[in-house]
Amino acid sequence: MKKRPLILVTNDDGINAPGIRALVEVASQLGDVVVVAPDSPQSGQGHAITIAEPLRMKQVDMFEGVEAWECSGTPVDCVKLGKHVALKGRNADLCVSGINHGSNASINIIYSGTMSAALEASLEGMNSIGFSLLDYSWDADFAPCLPFVKEIIAHVLENGLQKCKLLNVNIPRADEADGIKGIKVCRQAEARWVERYVESVDPRGQKYYWLAGDFVNRDNGEDTDVKALEEGFISVVPSGHDLTRYEAIGPLKVLEQNISIES
Amino acid sequence: MKKRPLILVTNDDGINAPGIRALVEVASQLGDVVVVAPDSPQSGQGHAITIAEPLRMKQVDMFEGVEAWECSGTPVDCVKLGKHVALKGRNADLCVSGINHGSNASINIIYSGTMSAALEASLEGMNSIGFSLLDYSWDADFAPCLPFVKEIIAHVLENGLQKCKLLNVNIPRADEADGIKGIKVCRQAEARWVERYVESVDPRGQKYYWLAGDFVNRDNGEDTDVKALEEGFISVVPSGHDLTRYEAIGPLKVLEQNISIES
Repeated sequence: MKKRPLILVTNDDGINAPGIRALVEVASQLGDVVVVAPDSPQSGQGHAITIAEPLRMKQVDMFEGVEAWECSGTPVDCVKLGKHVALKGRNADLCVSGINHGSNASINIIYSGTMSAALEASLEGMNSIGFSLLDYSWDADFAPCLPFVKEIIAHVLENGLQKCKLLNVNIPRADEADGIKGIKVCRQAEARWVERYVESVDPRGQKYYWLAGDFVNRDNGEDTDVKALEEGFISVVPSGHDLTRYEAIGPLKVLEQNISIES
Repeated sequence: MKKRPLILVTNDDGINAPGIRALVEVASQLGDVVVVAPDSPQSGQGHAITIAEPLRMKQVDMFEGVEAWECSGTPVDCVKLGKHVALKGRNADLCVSGINHGSNASINIIYSGTMSAALEASLEGMNSIGFSLLDYSWDADFAPCLPFVKEIIAHVLENGLQKCKLLNVNIPRADEADGIKGIKVCRQAEARWVERYVESVDPRGQKYYWLAGDFVNRDNGEDTDVKALEEGFISVVPSGHDLTRYEAIGPLKVLEQNISIES
């Protein structure tokens, strides 16, 4: 009998979030699950790591029959420290992160703790998938997407990944009348946040600013994640960590010759 | 007479760091400078943003003749809120971030607050450069690299950037016997951190973990930033925010057909 795969589950909304509970349920059908997730919400933490203070790990009994740990750090800390403590230095066969309450499509990938945790796992050498549902509410309905989540995890467990180790999976909201249409493999849309700050005065008379912001997509491509989601499809973007813009290396070579440093 | 360019200066080591003082001095020779930097050290913050609490901005008189603000948030918050408050919604002609105390070459770019601030500025539409010196100490000697920093800033102000909006510039340590050899335009090396955790017990008897870790470069390419730095050159990597692994889209297309969801 084939050995069940080992699956590390994490997120950024915290170990109490309904989204991770849904993901643990699906992952447990396909392998042996170890959960290592933040003990408090960590949205917007990006690829932050904790270097200036110590971290705590605490084993908790929250998911029936599943080993689970809460970690005091960021999502990236959870993966690093989870590998060290919970997995005793081993890699899992797969890391899944989420299901995030809210979109991580397009540029959201770089702000997202969910995706940064998944990216960190890919740096460790694990195949890794981040899942996000386009519904920020705490009582979002994850049920319609779970068969798709299961199929994508099963596909990666069975077939592995080629030429990447990380998938960014975003899932449209689906109600009964308008279900999920299917899956599209996409590129990351060239969209961005246009910040807005709510300005106000605190009870002590000091001015403060609170981030709001609007997501603006100016990318009209048919092959983007944002477009697929608008059309009711799940978007899958193979992703990585090489930020080099190779096409810009040539034009910059002048820098190597042109510098006239006074010596 | 040509109008002096407007330069936004930020960092992640905090507004008190010697590295930002060196950068402000150089930038002031080339343009009108506005500083917006964290009020405390923010190393390792990656692309974290503050969404769950309010932010503060305070104008400070720390750099002679230069408008400066300290911000309670992360480096990315500094750029977003700096644009909103200090620049009153305008873009600067250039954003420079650093000079970081320590390397941001290779995979460090994704953990780095310095580079994430610069990346955020590029998302806002500004040309942007992050500078880092391969010396973690607070009293690092920035003097040998300042002529190079000035030339790179001047080059970008005069010529702009083609096919990218962001440069990751790393600078080797230089002592008198062995100066900086020049500049190389590179790609990001495929290196990573192998984590180590120091485990100990706190005064209350609770176990804790503290991140250590070793930087491991397994990339033997001659064209990487790590290689250039080892040879005594400044590395310049044109960088961006599109994490898509385009070469992996084709092999994944099977996901669009193969899914057999029970309906």
